[in-house]
Amino acid sequence: MSDNSTVSRRQFISGAGLVAIGATAAHFGSFLSNAEAKGGSTEKWPWPYVKLDPAITAEIAYEEWYRLFCGGAVVSSVFGQLREKIGEPYKSFPIDAFIFLEGGVSGWGTICGSNAGANIVTNLIIGPRIANSDDGALMGSEMLQWYCDASMPVYTPKKPRVTAEIPKTTSDSPLCHVSVGKWMKAAGKELKSPERKDRCARVTASVAYHLVELLNAWKDGKYETKGIIPSANYGITAQNNCTECHGSNIPSPPIAKATGK
Amino acid sequence: MSDNSTVSRRQFISGAGLVAIGATAAHFGSFLSNAEAKGGSTEKWPWPYVKLDPAITAEIAYEEWYRLFCGGAVVSSVFGQLREKIGEPYKSFPIDAFIFLEGGVSGWGTICGSNAGANIVTNLIIGPRIANSDDGALMGSEMLQWYCDASMPVYTPKKPRVTAEIPKTTSDSPLCHVSVGKWMKAAGKELKSPERKDRCARVTASVAYHLVELLNAWKDGKYETKGIIPSANYGITAQNNCTECHGSNIPSPPIAKATGK
Repeated sequence: MSDNSTVSRRQFISGAGLVAIGATAAHFGSFLSNAEAKGGSTEKWPWPYVKLDPAITAEIAYEEWYRLFCGGAVVSSVFGQLREKIGEPYKSFPIDAFIFLEGGVSGWGTICGSNAGANIVTNLIIGPRIANSDDGALMGSEMLQWYCDASMPVYTPKKPRVTAEIPKTTSDSPLCHVSVGKWMKAAGKELKSPERKDRCARVTASVAYHLVELLNAWKDGKYETKGIIPSANYGITAQNNCTECHGSNIPSPPIAKATGK
Repeated sequence: MSDNSTVSRRQFISGAGLVAIGATAAHFGSFLSNAEAKGGSTEKWPWPYVKLDPAITAEIAYEEWYRLFCGGAVVSSVFGQLREKIGEPYKSFPIDAFIFLEGGVSGWGTICGSNAGANIVTNLIIGPRIANSDDGALMGSEMLQWYCDASMPVYTPKKPRVTAEIPKTTSDSPLCHVSVGKWMKAAGKELKSPERKDRCARVTASVAYHLVELLNAWKDGKYETKGIIPSANYGITAQNNCTECHGSNIPSPPIAKATGK
């Protein structure tokens, strides 16, 4: 164990260490010159997009959480509307399969599904960085950073299924395990509680809302990314707050009751 | 900090705590009865599949890593062949967009892209758990566990781009940051080194190889899942080796040199 890493994410973001995708392309992408698209008609970017209403999208995402959970709901909230307003290629995209993003990929607690879903949306609509623009990757990365920093859930649905107060917490991490764990500790609620479920549905709605704000700005030609690719500065793929885990503030894990709840 | 969690993953898997998807469906999926597919023609499962050669798939994945990195390469290694052998719906799936899974999602070090890609493949081919079968989710989860336990890279390409010896390490985690970090420490190589890149290309090939082994068994009606959904037993979304992080064995993070490499 070590607590000798003293660089916080905020120091990183605000300081001289800012690394945008140019540096990361050099880091990861030294084969870009060989890149060529290989697929069918959907491998052309950007995909057609019309501006969506953030609040309507958030309401759809909130309701869809109760069908597809975090990742599938974010994808569905955007692509479902675009299926109606545009049609293809959204009709051919298998939204429901992405239910597997729930719980940080089938309950493993890795990346929060709403973050994974947001990155799928940005990279599918705007396109991969080997195609026409870095904006898809950078907007996805900006969504991760926004999620880490936000007091969540940001969005309150018009007709919440749970009317009890839902506390707000800041995850400082894009991971389901850390985000949900910090909220459970602050709220004193279990994973299976209606409050935890509604919190995650509201987080999903919050991500969908902000995602559409960014996509609308991009559609208007006004998107200026705040997205960073954090890996280069630490010589390893990682977010930028090393001491969150490489420090002395890791809590005891909550153990489920013996009843197997 | 705490080191009072003494349940290892192996104890969990081999012991009475085994939780299969039935328990998890109760955990996460209390709304299954309301589930219905909403999409276009690709929202029907399973997708057509013909058995693939694991070694050929691994070779494709290895080479595709140098174009699409870990996540995109796993998807491309399977779907690229199925585009040729079957056609739709694989031709309509935008493989290249999933380059964003690189480095644990744009360099953030979350889930290793090869794991995310494998889960995309299993859940798209077999289908989501709200459709016809739990096998897509369980096979994806089995891939995560296999990745954690394997001495990686398992697969050696026929014509490796890097001929130096590539050490093998066990990640005990599905996360890019942990998997890559443990390997870098064991190998004494930096993230930007040719050896690290080729290690990740070989890990990607290893995942593709095993993924096709499982898909072929499923196609033959012989797939018996070892997949578990780990969240229920701990009352939080998580993998099953809590003390890997909630313990005293977290190393100092490597700091990139001041040159901005």
